[in-house]
Amino acid sequence: MPITVQFAAGPKLWPEYQAPLAAAFAEAGLDIAMTPEADPATVDYVVFAPGGTITDFAPYTRCKAVLNLWAGVERVVGLAGLTQPLCRMVDPALTEGMVEYVVGNVLRHHLGLDQHIRHQDGVWRNNLVPPIARERPVTILGLGELGAACGQALARLNFPVTGWSRTPKEVPGLRCLAGPAGLEAALDGAQVVVLLLPLTAETENLLNAGRIARMARGGFVINPGRGPLIDDAALLAALDTGRLAHATLDVFRTEPLPPAHPFWGHPGVTVTPHIAADTRAPSASRVIAENIRRGEAGEPFLYRVDRARGY
Amino acid sequence: MPITVQFAAGPKLWPEYQAPLAAAFAEAGLDIAMTPEADPATVDYVVFAPGGTITDFAPYTRCKAVLNLWAGVERVVGLAGLTQPLCRMVDPALTEGMVEYVVGNVLRHHLGLDQHIRHQDGVWRNNLVPPIARERPVTILGLGELGAACGQALARLNFPVTGWSRTPKEVPGLRCLAGPAGLEAALDGAQVVVLLLPLTAETENLLNAGRIARMARGGFVINPGRGPLIDDAALLAALDTGRLAHATLDVFRTEPLPPAHPFWGHPGVTVTPHIAADTRAPSASRVIAENIRRGEAGEPFLYRVDRARGY
Repeated sequence: MPITVQFAAGPKLWPEYQAPLAAAFAEAGLDIAMTPEADPATVDYVVFAPGGTITDFAPYTRCKAVLNLWAGVERVVGLAGLTQPLCRMVDPALTEGMVEYVVGNVLRHHLGLDQHIRHQDGVWRNNLVPPIARERPVTILGLGELGAACGQALARLNFPVTGWSRTPKEVPGLRCLAGPAGLEAALDGAQVVVLLLPLTAETENLLNAGRIARMARGGFVINPGRGPLIDDAALLAALDTGRLAHATLDVFRTEPLPPAHPFWGHPGVTVTPHIAADTRAPSASRVIAENIRRGEAGEPFLYRVDRARGY
Repeated sequence: MPITVQFAAGPKLWPEYQAPLAAAFAEAGLDIAMTPEADPATVDYVVFAPGGTITDFAPYTRCKAVLNLWAGVERVVGLAGLTQPLCRMVDPALTEGMVEYVVGNVLRHHLGLDQHIRHQDGVWRNNLVPPIARERPVTILGLGELGAACGQALARLNFPVTGWSRTPKEVPGLRCLAGPAGLEAALDGAQVVVLLLPLTAETENLLNAGRIARMARGGFVINPGRGPLIDDAALLAALDTGRLAHATLDVFRTEPLPPAHPFWGHPGVTVTPHIAADTRAPSASRVIAENIRRGEAGEPFLYRVDRARGY
C-alpha cells in the first residue's frame, strides 16, 4: 500500500513541486501516491503552504503530519481543525542561494560585466581592466547567518570584507564593527555595500544620504535584505549624480515592484524579483521526504512547530 | 639623491602606470624620480614593454636593470645594446583576476542575471528560481595553475566541479579526469564548461560539435583560455538551435574581434575584450618597486631573464 500524500499547497506550486517531490520520495525509498485532491480520510501526510487548498483539517483523521513548504507558519497554525503535528520548512538551500546571489552580483559589479552584456556592438572596450578583488573593499551590513556566510565567501575570494552588526560579533576572516560609530567606519570608503539586516524601527532607512556619502565615489549597493532598509529617494539621487555607480535590488517596499516605479527605468538600477533567498523545490522536497521517512519510522519530525510559541 | 627611473614602456601605458608606480615606490620607501624621457646617462632603472621608446640600450651606462611590464620578453631580449639585467613580470594578480572572471561569469549564468540586466521593463519575472550551485555541474578543461585555481574556487561555492587534463592530475576538491576517454566523461551532462587549456595542435578545435553534444542541453560555455580551442561554427550552430544557452568568450582567433564577426551580434554570445587575465597596474607596480628595492639593497632581482634560455 503506497503512502497517500495530498499536495494541498495550491495549484500554482504543483507544477514546480510535483517532479522534485517525486524524485525526493524515490531517493528516500518511499512508495508514495501524491495528488492535489484526495479523500481526507485516506491521507497520510499533507504538504501545505499558506493560502493552500484545505480550510478544515478535522476530516484528516489518519494524517500523521502537515508539512509546510515555507519557514513562516503564522498563517497556518490557526487553521480550523489543525491538531496534527505541523512542521515548518528549514531549507538548507536558502543560505547557499543567498551566498550565490551576493557573490555573483558583487563579482558582476567588480568585473564591470554589465558594459559587456549590454553593449555587444563590435567595440572592443579593453581600456578598463578591473582591479583585483583584494583592492575592492566590500562592507556587509548585518552579520546574522546570511551576512556572515556571504562575508566569508567574499573574503575567500580575497575581497577585504568589513561586517557590521548592531551588537558586537566576531566572524573569522572579516573585520567586524558594531554600533552607531562602527556603522560610519564600516561605510567609509566601501566600494560595495551589501544589506542583510533585519527590518526593525532602527534599521528602516538605515542607508540614507549621509551614509551613502561615506562610501567610495562610484560605489555599488546590493540589497537582498529588506526593501525599507534603504531611503529610496536618497539612493536615486546618489545614482543620478554618479555618487553611486549602480544598485542591484532584490527587495522593495511594495512587491512585485509596480511597473511605474522609477527603479525599473533607471539605468543605474537592476531590479531582481525577490530571488536571492527563495525556497528551492529540490532541497525543500528532500526535507519533506525526510520528514515522511521519519513519520513512517516512528522517529521525531524535523522542525516541528511548538504551538505554545507559535513557531 | 632620488633614484632615476625612466618609464620607457610607451605613452599608452604611462597614464595607466604613473600613479600605481608612484604609490608602489612610496609604499616600498623608495625615493624615486620617474619620467618618460631622461638623459640615458642618468638613468638607474628602465621600466619597459615590447614596443617601448628605447631602441638602443648602450647609452644607459649606469642602468642597474631593465624591468619589463609583461611576462613575455621574446621581443625585448634581442634589442640593441641590452646587456643590463633584464627582468620579466610575474604578476601575482593574474591568477586571482582569472579566478574572479571565471567565478563571476559562472555565477552570472548560474543565477540567470542577464535576463534581469537586459530587461528592466517593469515585468516581475520571479517564475524562474535558479537551482543552487550544488545542482549545477561545472567542468574545467585544463588543470594548470589557472584551471586548478578556478576549479577550487567554484568547488568552495558548492559547484560539483570536474576537471580534465591531458595527463592525469589530482586537484583537491575536484573530480579529476584525464586523456581522451576522460574528456568525453568530463563533458557528459556538464551544465557549464570553462576552457583553460594551452593551445596546441591537439587542443585546437577541441570543443567541437560532437563534444558540445555531450553537455547538458541549455548549457553554458566560458572561454578565457585561447580562441582556437573552440570550433566557432559548431558553437554558433549549437547556440542557434538552443543546444547551448550562452557562450561568454574572452579570447578569439583574431583580436580585437572584428566588428563584423557573428559573435558580436549573436544574442547567445557575450564578447569580453581579453580582460580575464590582464596584468594589473597596482600589483605589477609592486613587483617593479620590489625589484628596485632589491637592486638598491644589492639583493638578487626577481624573475631575472636567463639570456641563454631566452626567458
